[in-house]
Amino acid sequence: MNRGLGRVASFVALVLLPATLPAGPRARDLGVPFDGRPGPLNAITDVTGVEVGHTTLIRGEGALVVGQGPVRTGVTAILPRGRDDRAPVFAGWHALNGNGEMTGTAWIDESGILDGPIMLTNTHSVGIVRDAVIQWQVRHRRSPGEVWWSLPVVAETWDGWLNDLNGFHVRPEHAFAALDSARGGPVAEGSVGGGTGMICHEFKGGIGTASRLTPAGYVVGVLVQANYGLRGQLRIAGVPVGREIPEGRIRDEEAGSLLVIIATDAPLGPHQLRRLARRPTLALGRLGSISGDGSGDLFLAFSTGNAVPTQAGQPGTVRMLPTGDLSPLFAAVVEATEEAIVNALVAAETMTGRDGHTALALPHDRLRAILARHGRLEQR
Amino acid sequence: MNRGLGRVASFVALVLLPATLPAGPRARDLGVPFDGRPGPLNAITDVTGVEVGHTTLIRGEGALVVGQGPVRTGVTAILPRGRDDRAPVFAGWHALNGNGEMTGTAWIDESGILDGPIMLTNTHSVGIVRDAVIQWQVRHRRSPGEVWWSLPVVAETWDGWLNDLNGFHVRPEHAFAALDSARGGPVAEGSVGGGTGMICHEFKGGIGTASRLTPAGYVVGVLVQANYGLRGQLRIAGVPVGREIPEGRIRDEEAGSLLVIIATDAPLGPHQLRRLARRPTLALGRLGSISGDGSGDLFLAFSTGNAVPTQAGQPGTVRMLPTGDLSPLFAAVVEATEEAIVNALVAAETMTGRDGHTALALPHDRLRAILARHGRLEQR
Amino acid sequence: MNRGLGRVASFVALVLLPATLPAGPRARDLGVPFDGRPGPLNAITDVTGVEVGHTTLIRGEGALVVGQGPVRTGVTAILPRGRDDRAPVFAGWHALNGNGEMTGTAWIDESGILDGPIMLTNTHSVGIVRDAVIQWQVRHRRSPGEVWWSLPVVAETWDGWLNDLNGFHVRPEHAFAALDSARGGPVAEGSVGGGTGMICHEFKGGIGTASRLTPAGYVVGVLVQANYGLRGQLRIAGVPVGREIPEGRIRDEEAGSLLVIIATDAPLGPHQLRRLARRPTLALGRLGSISGDGSGDLFLAFSTGNAVPTQAGQPGTVRMLPTGDLSPLFAAVVEATEEAIVNALVAAETMTGRDGHTALALPHDRLRAILARHGRLEQR
Amino acid sequence: MNRGLGRVASFVALVLLPATLPAGPRARDLGVPFDGRPGPLNAITDVTGVEVGHTTLIRGEGALVVGQGPVRTGVTAILPRGRDDRAPVFAGWHALNGNGEMTGTAWIDESGILDGPIMLTNTHSVGIVRDAVIQWQVRHRRSPGEVWWSLPVVAETWDGWLNDLNGFHVRPEHAFAALDSARGGPVAEGSVGGGTGMICHEFKGGIGTASRLTPAGYVVGVLVQANYGLRGQLRIAGVPVGREIPEGRIRDEEAGSLLVIIATDAPLGPHQLRRLARRPTLALGRLGSISGDGSGDLFLAFSTGNAVPTQAGQPGTVRMLPTGDLSPLFAAVVEATEEAIVNALVAAETMTGRDGHTALALPHDRLRAILARHGRLEQR
Repeated sequence: MNRGLGRVASFVALVLLPATLPAGPRARDLGVPFDGRPGPLNAITDVTGVEVGHTTLIRGEGALVVGQGPVRTGVTAILPRGRDDRAPVFAGWHALNGNGEMTGTAWIDESGILDGPIMLTNTHSVGIVRDAVIQWQVRHRRSPGEVWWSLPVVAETWDGWLNDLNGFHVRPEHAFAALDSARGGPVAEGSVGGGTGMICHEFKGGIGTASRLTPAGYVVGVLVQANYGLRGQLRIAGVPVGREIPEGRIRDEEAGSLLVIIATDAPLGPHQLRRLARRPTLALGRLGSISGDGSGDLFLAFSTGNAVPTQAGQPGTVRMLPTGDLSPLFAAVVEATEEAIVNALVAAETMTGRDGHTALALPHDRLRAILARHGRLEQR
Repeated sequence: MNRGLGRVASFVALVLLPATLPAGPRARDLGVPFDGRPGPLNAITDVTGVEVGHTTLIRGEGALVVGQGPVRTGVTAILPRGRDDRAPVFAGWHALNGNGEMTGTAWIDESGILDGPIMLTNTHSVGIVRDAVIQWQVRHRRSPGEVWWSLPVVAETWDGWLNDLNGFHVRPEHAFAALDSARGGPVAEGSVGGGTGMICHEFKGGIGTASRLTPAGYVVGVLVQANYGLRGQLRIAGVPVGREIPEGRIRDEEAGSLLVIIATDAPLGPHQLRRLARRPTLALGRLGSISGDGSGDLFLAFSTGNAVPTQAGQPGTVRMLPTGDLSPLFAAVVEATEEAIVNALVAAETMTGRDGHTALALPHDRLRAILARHGRLEQR
Repeated sequence: MNRGLGRVASFVALVLLPATLPAGPRARDLGVPFDGRPGPLNAITDVTGVEVGHTTLIRGEGALVVGQGPVRTGVTAILPRGRDDRAPVFAGWHALNGNGEMTGTAWIDESGILDGPIMLTNTHSVGIVRDAVIQWQVRHRRSPGEVWWSLPVVAETWDGWLNDLNGFHVRPEHAFAALDSARGGPVAEGSVGGGTGMICHEFKGGIGTASRLTPAGYVVGVLVQANYGLRGQLRIAGVPVGREIPEGRIRDEEAGSLLVIIATDAPLGPHQLRRLARRPTLALGRLGSISGDGSGDLFLAFSTGNAVPTQAGQPGTVRMLPTGDLSPLFAAVVEATEEAIVNALVAAETMTGRDGHTALALPHDRLRAILARHGRLEQR
Repeated sequence: MNRGLGRVASFVALVLLPATLPAGPRARDLGVPFDGRPGPLNAITDVTGVEVGHTTLIRGEGALVVGQGPVRTGVTAILPRGRDDRAPVFAGWHALNGNGEMTGTAWIDESGILDGPIMLTNTHSVGIVRDAVIQWQVRHRRSPGEVWWSLPVVAETWDGWLNDLNGFHVRPEHAFAALDSARGGPVAEGSVGGGTGMICHEFKGGIGTASRLTPAGYVVGVLVQANYGLRGQLRIAGVPVGREIPEGRIRDEEAGSLLVIIATDAPLGPHQLRRLARRPTLALGRLGSISGDGSGDLFLAFSTGNAVPTQAGQPGTVRMLPTGDLSPLFAAVVEATEEAIVNALVAAETMTGRDGHTALALPHDRLRAILARHGRLEQR
């Protein structure tokens, strides 16, 4: 049966993914100027311990037949401390515009604790991925009969313009695969994982990542699933790039969403991470967004810089930066988010999906030419 | 295969449910005194249009075999305007203690709009139920190829002491059945639907409901999934009932959660519904709870008293009570929540589940005797 | 001039206050049963370092002449670490019903830090007290020319039924006096300080305090300024006391507010203190309140158990209880708040204010008789 | 006595203010490009009914003598419906970074209602201005003996680098004067009212305003008190202007704050206004801010497009745009906030204050030259 075969195909694609890692240039390779100093990988994985895995599902072409495809979707897994370390982390989150879903946030708000992976997928697959995370935790991490519960974090953006969204093609095994394939090192960007069918400023969007090192030596890493914005709004390095590339527009009014996951090794408390989680909005501002009504702009920040106290009956020890030391971390979040979104745009290639819908890649040469004309192209 | 048979069995039970409706007494029938004036059904369905459906899954006995049972769980569906009216409602929510999950809340916070049913189930089945709601909506409510999305509201409490929680026994068809069987009229209470395997103050808990009529003629209906509290904390009508019934205690420290769904026909805006959603805490206080760390105490309020403006390009008209008129509605929420929880305790019968774990029913005669001794038994 | 003399008179009263400390019984002395184990003073000052000072302004009788009186108001100061220790504390706050003012909360929300005293006064004197705190800080705590700013915390309830509220009788010197007279030890209750003109459940209300020791040895202290509720709602120890004492009712619909200040020496982070600050609602529930529209029910919790990291350029070390250890602290907050409110009612004596308005004291003998009749009077 | 004379002088300046209205160019007169279509005044007063008044206090020079000066401060009053219409408005607010004060927000959060003026002043004068608003309301708007209360909205930024902040020079009469002088029409910008001593991106800052007309014909007006940011962060029209004008820098790390008041005649509910209040962050992003730890970035939005239901005993009728119609209003907020901040920078003239501290005006010619060099200068 087709669906079965398709699923196998996607696994094959998945297995090959690490081999197909970033061949193309990233935004700063093209001469897009950014503030701040990136980490060695310029990726969320610059934060020690963070692992990322993608399952990418691409199969079928032509007219939409609900349940059969075309399929352009996937799952991305982010493991704050990697697969082998089950210790929770402190976390905080923020909704700039809540037209979206991120499960597990009530407990993050309450306790400041994130216990388990963060999963990104499409809007209609949040549930299957959520319960799959529990199944995966039951199977791999704890004894199955243990009296125990889990409140997984799964977030989404909407890929229904390219993908057979209502065909529900994401299955538990795709979540498992994203989790099992998670690793450190370079992170695939563009049309991969949860970002496979996403669109950003009416160009092909998807997954992007970047990082910053602060003067005090902390690392801030960001991973985005970018699926928001109108063409005319797009500014890169302050230049109104979107207006100068009118081709291939897709919509008349803003739709789509932005997920931002922020990792840091700075020793912060939950209330401080919530503050970091409020900063991606400033990066969105730089890029021209107004965060329209249809946006699910949900941001989550976590820190690997502390062990969360868990031993009953005694206080744990936590390190915490003074409030006056946070501004450089705020700057790092803004800068890394800005670059991660442009990286998503630069990495994603033109994709045709359901009903022949085509999302164009941001043309690298045009981008360079426009930046140059405004005196904003950086020579490297 | 056993699981298949079991599922059929549960469907049979489900179909019979309306026939097996409340034979037993409810709390006020026993002489428990409550404030305020209930509606004709003393149920959430006193709010015109509200429909409730339960799928109850009970099968197997003895030692836990993960994936096989014993199964003591289910799904409850609440449709704010019934199955045939797809119009959204205004809503607001509150987390007293967020050790739990309620999906769909980011959009409720943002827009004040609830579009679709509210589902209650166990902790590890939130995902399957969430995506099942979308499937049900795709199938029954909209053209399947329509470009469209949904952010369903699904909430949970933990039934792992009686139920094979990590066996993931809730399937999409159970969510469909709860939705398809929803209707107005009397509501089954106790060990039904999402409340099947729940425990409250170390007695058998589950689903309870109640309603109030305000002096101005508005109806407030409440439905709870009660799964919280220690025995010693339980006060009924202010009397420390829990301390006087020490038998059959289950735990040493507080665990479990309380879901409260509030319906009203009062014409309110989202910001006013958020205020209603903050009031169940006062009912919990009356009953002696301290809302422990392990509680997922999540409350949602909606109003059928307005059409949510949806026509593009022009303002809709909304009716809204002046802020000074809200106190009677607050009182109604407190009173109805208090009674709904006691109704859950009164309705639930003793249940034995996994590994022979047994949750005792609150003994009616003992309750009456204790209230009488404190001059609090009402003669009816 | 009259006002000047009046002010002097109030200072005299103030100076004498320590001498007039609790002669009368407190709630538990009357046999009101409470849960939990109180600290040695059963007061917020059981938390080491906490100091409390009151300025009480009482002068004039008869018909209201705005600006002249009668005056029944005051200021209460709570210093988390006493006057000599300027170190900030971690804090969190919650608004059950925000029809009130507590300044300084934006920074507490943002940083989790409370830097300076907490002041309680009447609704229309929040401003004068707020700026007076800064003047006091400038004068006593820092070099006056220092480039520096302060965002003081001042909260209020409304005393306009007894007091010439729009006469603005609280002056900066009254705030200074409350701050300068703050000390540890027993705390005056009833019609003192900010609570002077307050009314609770239509009895004379005001300031109350209580404390609890947790099994792990932490102290939780609570101080309330109680000014809320209808007579018929009042339950003490679960007994509907209010209904049985119908005399001297004042209003038809709920008005007034409740301020709750929670202190603890438990080592908690700001996000955990926010959770403590959400618990007084459960105590209000026990006492029968529905937190009406007119209520400004604002709660603030702080911990002296940590030094807030303040040294630029390096993380500080903070101790933090595991989330699973918080429930006993939650219980302590609920229990101490419940007792503090009843203490306020028990301590306050009948007061006549503007236009001959009289608020009756809760009659001790009647209370005892009613509790006895319901089998709830404790023999001590 | 000096202070008395100084106060008289400030009143004289105030009375002359309307005569000294905007002689200089505004940002778009200089060729700074902005998105969207402004209203006729390009000011918050384009929203019918909105009135603005400033009291500007400037006196003294030289070394700081606390209590004597130099004084560089003031008060700005914004009356949502003008002085003669006491009807409340719906409102919502947001704290991007809460290192600041805005009183009255608990009630706005709770009820969605703003009842009275909005006042802007310096950090240490919030209290005096708050209580002065009540005095003004008592005197001018209601019968003085009426049982009544008020929770005024007063916000602040810090002007202690130029102003004798700890001299507390703002007096009640200055608040009265701002209220009494409020009117529609053009709004004075730069170093006036609450903005007198403010600094923005290390240039002289202060009050700025702008407006937008949406395609549907609604007006969005914004007024800012701009006192934030480092020089190097400043981007105007996407061009890194701040880096190219290094002269006259003031600080090494971010300090200061931004207040944004948003008015609209669009018929919105409180929950929708809260969404508008979240959008100024995107404008800050465009201008390069990272909203540092020291920022009190507090935003408030109100709508004159509805009568708030106030008649007891019956629902009022409210008009409300469908959620899908909000994006153009979001865009208007972002665009008007961006322009209002640049207007503040363009209008403010170089000012010398305490201890000879001098904040330079943004040089118009330099700005034009830099924009021209980046192909961003607009010819008008």
